[in-house]
Amino acid sequence: MVVDLYELTMAQAYFLEQKNGTASFEILVRSLPPHWGFFVMAGLTELESYLSGFSFSTDDIASLRETGLFDDRFLTFLYQGKPRISVRCMPEGSVFFPGEPIAEFHGPVIDMQILETYVLNILGFSILQATLAARFELASRGKPVLDFGLRKAQGPVASIRSARGAQIAGFAGTSNVKASQLLDFKPSGTMAHSFVQAHETEEQAFEAFARVFRDQSVFLVDTYDSREGIRTAAQVAKRLLDREKVHIKGIRLDSGNLAGLAGMAREHFDTEGLGFLKVFASGGLDEYLVADLVEQGAPIDGFGVGTSFAVSSHAPALDITYKPVEYDGRPTRKTSPGKETVSGRKSIERIQHEGIFVEDHVVSLGHPADLLVPFAGGERIDTVHTRLNRNLAGLAAACKRIKSPSPYPVIYDSGRQ
Amino acid sequence: MVVDLYELTMAQAYFLEQKNGTASFEILVRSLPPHWGFFVMAGLTELESYLSGFSFSTDDIASLRETGLFDDRFLTFLYQGKPRISVRCMPEGSVFFPGEPIAEFHGPVIDMQILETYVLNILGFSILQATLAARFELASRGKPVLDFGLRKAQGPVASIRSARGAQIAGFAGTSNVKASQLLDFKPSGTMAHSFVQAHETEEQAFEAFARVFRDQSVFLVDTYDSREGIRTAAQVAKRLLDREKVHIKGIRLDSGNLAGLAGMAREHFDTEGLGFLKVFASGGLDEYLVADLVEQGAPIDGFGVGTSFAVSSHAPALDITYKPVEYDGRPTRKTSPGKETVSGRKSIERIQHEGIFVEDHVVSLGHPADLLVPFAGGERIDTVHTRLNRNLAGLAAACKRIKSPSPYPVIYDSGRQ
Repeated sequence: MVVDLYELTMAQAYFLEQKNGTASFEILVRSLPPHWGFFVMAGLTELESYLSGFSFSTDDIASLRETGLFDDRFLTFLYQGKPRISVRCMPEGSVFFPGEPIAEFHGPVIDMQILETYVLNILGFSILQATLAARFELASRGKPVLDFGLRKAQGPVASIRSARGAQIAGFAGTSNVKASQLLDFKPSGTMAHSFVQAHETEEQAFEAFARVFRDQSVFLVDTYDSREGIRTAAQVAKRLLDREKVHIKGIRLDSGNLAGLAGMAREHFDTEGLGFLKVFASGGLDEYLVADLVEQGAPIDGFGVGTSFAVSSHAPALDITYKPVEYDGRPTRKTSPGKETVSGRKSIERIQHEGIFVEDHVVSLGHPADLLVPFAGGERIDTVHTRLNRNLAGLAAACKRIKSPSPYPVIYDSGRQ
Repeated sequence: MVVDLYELTMAQAYFLEQKNGTASFEILVRSLPPHWGFFVMAGLTELESYLSGFSFSTDDIASLRETGLFDDRFLTFLYQGKPRISVRCMPEGSVFFPGEPIAEFHGPVIDMQILETYVLNILGFSILQATLAARFELASRGKPVLDFGLRKAQGPVASIRSARGAQIAGFAGTSNVKASQLLDFKPSGTMAHSFVQAHETEEQAFEAFARVFRDQSVFLVDTYDSREGIRTAAQVAKRLLDREKVHIKGIRLDSGNLAGLAGMAREHFDTEGLGFLKVFASGGLDEYLVADLVEQGAPIDGFGVGTSFAVSSHAPALDITYKPVEYDGRPTRKTSPGKETVSGRKSIERIQHEGIFVEDHVVSLGHPADLLVPFAGGERIDTVHTRLNRNLAGLAAACKRIKSPSPYPVIYDSGRQ
């Protein structure tokens, strides 16, 4: 039922005119957001469970009947039907580019139409989040990145898609307990300002936390004055070390001049013989700020990323489409200005030279090295993460810059048909 | 389990130090997105069902145990607990402004902490969508607006929050069948380009659709050439009228120069004696484009809004916070730069002059005309929609402009404490 009404009205029109020939629809993303150089395929596990669980319940049918728009014969057909489709697509973790098909759905046109809305909903945001997570990983150059986005996500399912993208790209963990449970992904997090405020002093708060979490403890130092907080954290860490041989894990900076404060903290900890204390940073970080901090050599050991990642604030939606390219053996296309499509079923060939991707060729269906392969959801996360890393290794440095990347060529061998 | 891990680690620290005094946390939005002049309270129905259904299952507890972070006594406490909190808040549909508390949660600090993440998740995006929907309604000046956002929403729950915001603000319907079912909101939608493409000609597609949907039919005219599509729609409409006395509903423009095409369509239909045909527009519309089209007098009878509404693309997240203001009778605040909070429990008094809101005063708890009232979720949509309209009527025109509105004064009578 998570479907646009027009999919069902169109489906009924097809049904009543007994027009249910085989159609091929392809999915592509029309354009890159500013400063993005590539996309990462994602969402296939969720897609598989959507396709395999697809059905209308008796309540759904009753609710559709109430709209007064639908014929009983059509509603019976909907209730009894299961999608009979096949899918070819790029495997999860593949990098791809605007203008090339990334998936092709093939089957009776009614089934194809009813699936459209939610297939786009799943793939659009999943691709966005896997790609953005990969951009954060490129920005942090190997320093751990954590997903702190749940509270700002546009809903719980969005937060799971974010965490899955984070996991594909190689984040070190997520604050999202549900996502960690569903995805078997490391949960992460320590304390908030409110915990410090609930205690008489910052020192008491750190002590109380350390008594419970020992060497897992990270102290949040910016509730009142960050420099003071850093010194207090050092005192408590030193006391724990001397008294109980416990190595506190580190501190978190969440506001202010992160590079300056990190520098001050690093120097203070090292001088005090607390070189083991790590410095984590969070608070309004996007991939550009992470890259800046890393480039200027700020002694930060890891980044927590929240809002900017959770809602993809620089590019909150993809220009993703699902368009028919063939109906009943006849090629179809549209010519709306700015939204032209290319007819016919296709394969993608990726030309490589010495291990580096040179260009993608969109050719007629049937190329032996087609990047579009029979759909397999539910791959293991290691497989997907490894595929992404291999793909990123194949992408020229200029194409994976997080600012002003070079465009990657996608060539239609047949020309625009 | 849709919670940030740190809420649970802090809760365990409180639990083990036997510190579970009464705390008050307040929610406020720190700042307005560019060009926004007000916010609309929303999300209370979802909040109520979250609070009343809150619990940890045995599976959840098992999964938390596996992290190795939690003590069994604490896990037993979590499993047995139900939140024992009270909430005061602005009723749904109220307008409010940055910097003033819009809700206060009061109860044992552990309960307060565990609820934080998802309360922010619910309220943040619900407020965003109700406010943005109100902005679209202001832009359209009474012309119907439809929610077409589902395919681009950042997940299914986000799409329901959007549709609920649309319903509060007075949209004419939604394309989202699930939302329409859950919210008892008018479903809306007709045909896509793919339907036209599946037929040999545009004319055949319109005829096939009209045979089924009669006077509900809206023809999408821009699959190939919009001017040609408009003429074809007129021919089919005329034929249906002559042959079967059916009045086709109208056409939809989805690309190109919407004002120009709408003008051409209106003139053509009127000349052909088809004055009943309505002209709907969609395709990349945000509130600014809708306002422009309305201001220039384009003969458009209704707007379908997709991506820009669904993900709130100009402002995809709110700067919403949940902060302690009192713990165990002691006022608390933080002083992190740019994130300072004001301690103590509060009331809001809204000063009015001749029915127009003049300024809001944030005063100490106990004002008799407090805008923060005991929480009541689940109000009827009519009640909420009427409240919003009354609130918007109280807001000066300068404050509800959709571009460069005047700021509305929020005054802390006690000064920053």
